Amino acid sequence: MTKGTILSGMRPTGPLHIGHLVGALSNWASLQDSYRCFFMVADWHALMSEYESPEVVREATLQVAIDFMACGLDPERSTIFVQSDVPEHIELYMAFSFVTPLGWLERCPTYKEQLRNITDRDISNYAFLGYPVLQAADILVYKADTVPVGEDQLPHLELTREIGRRFNHLYGGIFPEPQAMLTNAPRFLGLDGRKMSKSYGNYISLSDTAEDIRAKVMTMFTDPQRQRKSDPGRPEICNVHRYFDIFAPDEAREVADKCRKAEWGCTDCKMRIAEILESRISPIRERQAALMADPAEVEDILTRGAQQARDVAEATMAEVRPAIGLKGTRR
Amino acid sequence: MTKGTILSGMRPTGPLHIGHLVGALSNWASLQDSYRCFFMVADWHALMSEYESPEVVREATLQVAIDFMACGLDPERSTIFVQSDVPEHIELYMAFSFVTPLGWLERCPTYKEQLRNITDRDISNYAFLGYPVLQAADILVYKADTVPVGEDQLPHLELTREIGRRFNHLYGGIFPEPQAMLTNAPRFLGLDGRKMSKSYGNYISLSDTAEDIRAKVMTMFTDPQRQRKSDPGRPEICNVHRYFDIFAPDEAREVADKCRKAEWGCTDCKMRIAEILESRISPIRERQAALMADPAEVEDILTRGAQQARDVAEATMAEVRPAIGLKGTRR
Repeated sequence: MTKGTILSGMRPTGPLHIGHLVGALSNWASLQDSYRCFFMVADWHALMSEYESPEVVREATLQVAIDFMACGLDPERSTIFVQSDVPEHIELYMAFSFVTPLGWLERCPTYKEQLRNITDRDISNYAFLGYPVLQAADILVYKADTVPVGEDQLPHLELTREIGRRFNHLYGGIFPEPQAMLTNAPRFLGLDGRKMSKSYGNYISLSDTAEDIRAKVMTMFTDPQRQRKSDPGRPEICNVHRYFDIFAPDEAREVADKCRKAEWGCTDCKMRIAEILESRISPIRERQAALMADPAEVEDILTRGAQQARDVAEATMAEVRPAIGLKGTRR
Repeated sequence: MTKGTILSGMRPTGPLHIGHLVGALSNWASLQDSYRCFFMVADWHALMSEYESPEVVREATLQVAIDFMACGLDPERSTIFVQSDVPEHIELYMAFSFVTPLGWLERCPTYKEQLRNITDRDISNYAFLGYPVLQAADILVYKADTVPVGEDQLPHLELTREIGRRFNHLYGGIFPEPQAMLTNAPRFLGLDGRKMSKSYGNYISLSDTAEDIRAKVMTMFTDPQRQRKSDPGRPEICNVHRYFDIFAPDEAREVADKCRKAEWGCTDCKMRIAEILESRISPIRERQAALMADPAEVEDILTRGAQQARDVAEATMAEVRPAIGLKGTRR
């Protein structure tokens, strides 16, 4: 049986954190033997919001590639590459632009939401409206049939299918209809109880030291009604407890018990979860350090990844170009 | 003194005709010694309107390249290439997309006009809105400082300057501000008195035979009040006479005289202008035939042209990529 093909990626807009690890990277790492995987550092997508801060994208691109590998994405089994190293993405984006009615993009729920929510940057530019078109090209240039996504990304994937369908209808069946692989990502919040996000600065990053982790965990909100250690706590509303559910599910029940019985205070819980997070992050940090000590090797991996990606992308474009009337193969 | 750089191009949407010759190609040919010239067969731009007819674009692309050379564009002195062979156009288009506010595009007068006028094809797609962004990339990827255009293209060139200016402001001064070289193209109409256009079928093409030309000229409208040869004619309102002004200005006064004095009838005029057009077109037709007999040579010229174009475009992108936070040189 032929393996399915997966494409996924992350935008290099800052350091990756434990949200990325639990929400995506651990899952991606586990898919590498059962799928042909393409993992992309989506630098063009990062520019959608960061075009006024190119230095952010520049620094984060290498960092995200390193974090990918530190979290278990393996360049021997998967293709790890930087989006802008594969110009076929942009070429297919252009081809898809013709078959994508403006209305599809203007009505896209995430587009309208972001226009409403992002107020500190000017995103009313031409590229931002075309975000889902570029995403369709990212996926379909590899003829990926499976896309691990969170629920919030489903409308975009639906647009990818519609664009592919319209293209197939006009020019013949070149593209598959990729299906969502809904990641059962446990939801959890940032240190301050808000969504974990770079811009809130409320995250534990994948390069935080043991000390950083402890210091950050100590600032976490717990049960606000619990004033003294002797007060019984309510783990069900405690953000720290949520971290136990996710990072140490086998300990979670016992810890909850101790909290309710006031045997453990919040500091006890925090000390323990900091240890657990450190034990999860320290091997990642070690691999990061090894990779960062050899940037030439990382560049080399990305160059090889881009070549592998281009081989596949170029084969797709060799079908696309003549279908839309262009001259055909090139390299 | 360094030569200026010129970029211009035509969309391969059908055969070229005497309107293209007089309105652009003759002028371009005359600029080749005083400028470094890039002449492009704009196949991506053709798809803006012809994306539902890829076979039209496919056939016309080679034909337009041949017509360029048949009309005197010389691959030894100028760079003649097909747009889609130079992927840097699309890459710069993407980079410009971030700095181009949607409003600039939506308010572009030609965009609004075309949305109103083009009713036989669906052009309300994402690509069509970005037409001027791609045009800006076409021009600026070669750092062209001079663009031969008709008056109707001035708003687009103004947008090119604004996009380049905004890019320079954000990322440093990479691009020049290209200036329009207004072509003093004599205006003249199609055989039926409407605008000469492929879709009206009212043109004399650059591959029409002597017989085709005569037959087409015979259908031309003249002075509607002149019923018989013995009626004096009014050359000032006669479309055939306008052709004398353009293609045989040294004969025009004498012919006008004969018309007013009813010495020549409309058929006399038409026979003569058909001869004149044939003498203008026959050497073009011969060069077309020679080129069409050796398609491998034409392909070769276009491949060399694309390589020359890419050398220049790649040097520009090697400045652009790091400026916007991407990884840099590639090939």
